[in-house]
Amino acid sequence: MSIIVLGTVALDTVRTPFGFKRHMLGGSAVHFAMAARLFTKVNLVAIVGRDFPQRYIDFLEKKGIVLTSLIRREGKTFKWKGEYRGDLNSAFTLSTELGVLSNFKPAVSSGQKRIKYIFLANVDPDMQRHLLMHMYAPSLIGLDSMNYWIKHKRKALIRLLKEVNIYVANEQEARDLSGESNLVKAAKRLRSFGPPMILIKKGEHGVLFYCDKFIFSLPAYPTDKVIDPTGAGDTFAGGFMGYLAKTEKINQAALKKAIAYGTIAASFNVEDFGVNKTARLTARDLENRLSKFRKLVSF
Amino acid sequence: MSIIVLGTVALDTVRTPFGFKRHMLGGSAVHFAMAARLFTKVNLVAIVGRDFPQRYIDFLEKKGIVLTSLIRREGKTFKWKGEYRGDLNSAFTLSTELGVLSNFKPAVSSGQKRIKYIFLANVDPDMQRHLLMHMYAPSLIGLDSMNYWIKHKRKALIRLLKEVNIYVANEQEARDLSGESNLVKAAKRLRSFGPPMILIKKGEHGVLFYCDKFIFSLPAYPTDKVIDPTGAGDTFAGGFMGYLAKTEKINQAALKKAIAYGTIAASFNVEDFGVNKTARLTARDLENRLSKFRKLVSF
Repeated sequence: MSIIVLGTVALDTVRTPFGFKRHMLGGSAVHFAMAARLFTKVNLVAIVGRDFPQRYIDFLEKKGIVLTSLIRREGKTFKWKGEYRGDLNSAFTLSTELGVLSNFKPAVSSGQKRIKYIFLANVDPDMQRHLLMHMYAPSLIGLDSMNYWIKHKRKALIRLLKEVNIYVANEQEARDLSGESNLVKAAKRLRSFGPPMILIKKGEHGVLFYCDKFIFSLPAYPTDKVIDPTGAGDTFAGGFMGYLAKTEKINQAALKKAIAYGTIAASFNVEDFGVNKTARLTARDLENRLSKFRKLVSF
Repeated sequence: MSIIVLGTVALDTVRTPFGFKRHMLGGSAVHFAMAARLFTKVNLVAIVGRDFPQRYIDFLEKKGIVLTSLIRREGKTFKWKGEYRGDLNSAFTLSTELGVLSNFKPAVSSGQKRIKYIFLANVDPDMQRHLLMHMYAPSLIGLDSMNYWIKHKRKALIRLLKEVNIYVANEQEARDLSGESNLVKAAKRLRSFGPPMILIKKGEHGVLFYCDKFIFSLPAYPTDKVIDPTGAGDTFAGGFMGYLAKTEKINQAALKKAIAYGTIAASFNVEDFGVNKTARLTARDLENRLSKFRKLVSF
């Protein structure tokens, strides 16, 4: 089954202890797509401005991403500028320029409306809802958000949560939105907002999955090559949703395996700047690291 | 095989969002012993003052802990007063009174000198070395420390690291002592100081184990009943060392299982104040939760 992702296509400027990169191809939809493409056909819904380099479009096309609903408008592409220090666990945002993103009304082709696996990466909840309203019969809807929307569009976000199957949040977002500091309590509270499944991403500490029937937890794949963590969460979501779309099952075994694939995809993402690493990944690379990972957590 | 633990026997005063407890039985050696006793005979090496309640001595004896080398001296028992806020992940120390601990020269009986499994819980590195010098032929020496010693007795600690098999540290200690923020790098660096095995405890985020042959990582057992995390790290060490002493093997399978037992023991510890929960635990409780945990991390 193919998958559709709404999110950002961005120009990222990033400084980490390992270097400085200007206007790299980035954005939630791009990071998501780089992982999900290893499992299934990925349709990208996003907007860029006139300044968006043609070579990035060519690159995405070459990677097999369906760009029918990537629109280009007068104006500037969404830009994010950030810095990582110390243990690279949290980004300091230096600037965000919305550009054409601020007036984006996502639209999809009539064929794309029938896609059953949907991921709403982090954009304005109203934009996310707008896309959702166009989809015919989703099998699985995943939703990501961020602190900005939790603070400034809490109501819209809470309303949207009732319509999705999986809410994906990082540790801090889960705490902020739920008002609970303990992550299991936070997950339970978020569950009560609507989504049957809650996935809390904890960066280098792995992930916690909660649903009514079971809890699942995995550490991150330990790596000492953390170069640039930008997009790790979206890469995780791409591996996770990509596997579910491919396997077309949503049972306990499939969900656990999907989380493991997400973990592995994210572990590659952090090992180089932008999508340098994930763009070169093959399904075999994923499988190889997955079997290492399986050993690493089994006792 | 029996086990010997050097550490503190303390009177802990703790405030958490769930209550306030004054002069509870606590200390690293006590928390360690409560978990390790489920696997093997535990010999405790520690000091208390005249103010130490007889009922705590009786309690420890009833739990089967060997108290031959628990000495009582003129003066006050070691006291720790702390508070946990928010997500209960870090303790705010309000006061520490060393009392009789400040002049403690640990001594053991001639029978105890032959014990092969040794855990040096967090006390002055000179005190830890002093005990170690008395032991005849250790099979396995575990060492814990804390930021205070890393800062004020770094040289003594580094020297001691060359003599132990396993260094157990929490995340922050591992970073401080190694100077590395990435935990895999930190583990490698700590390995270069001497100990063939490095165990980094990450609280609610689980544990990372490093040795030359393999890396192992487990999340914590997810619980929403975190009442008082005091002693969780020592309880972890007790389950870990206790299992190794019982199984008398130090191979990959045994180490992984020991880490899982430590994780489970620690998960019980946090569910009530002091040793309230761990003192009542049975081996069956551990086994039951261990099999739940195995499901929870396998994919």
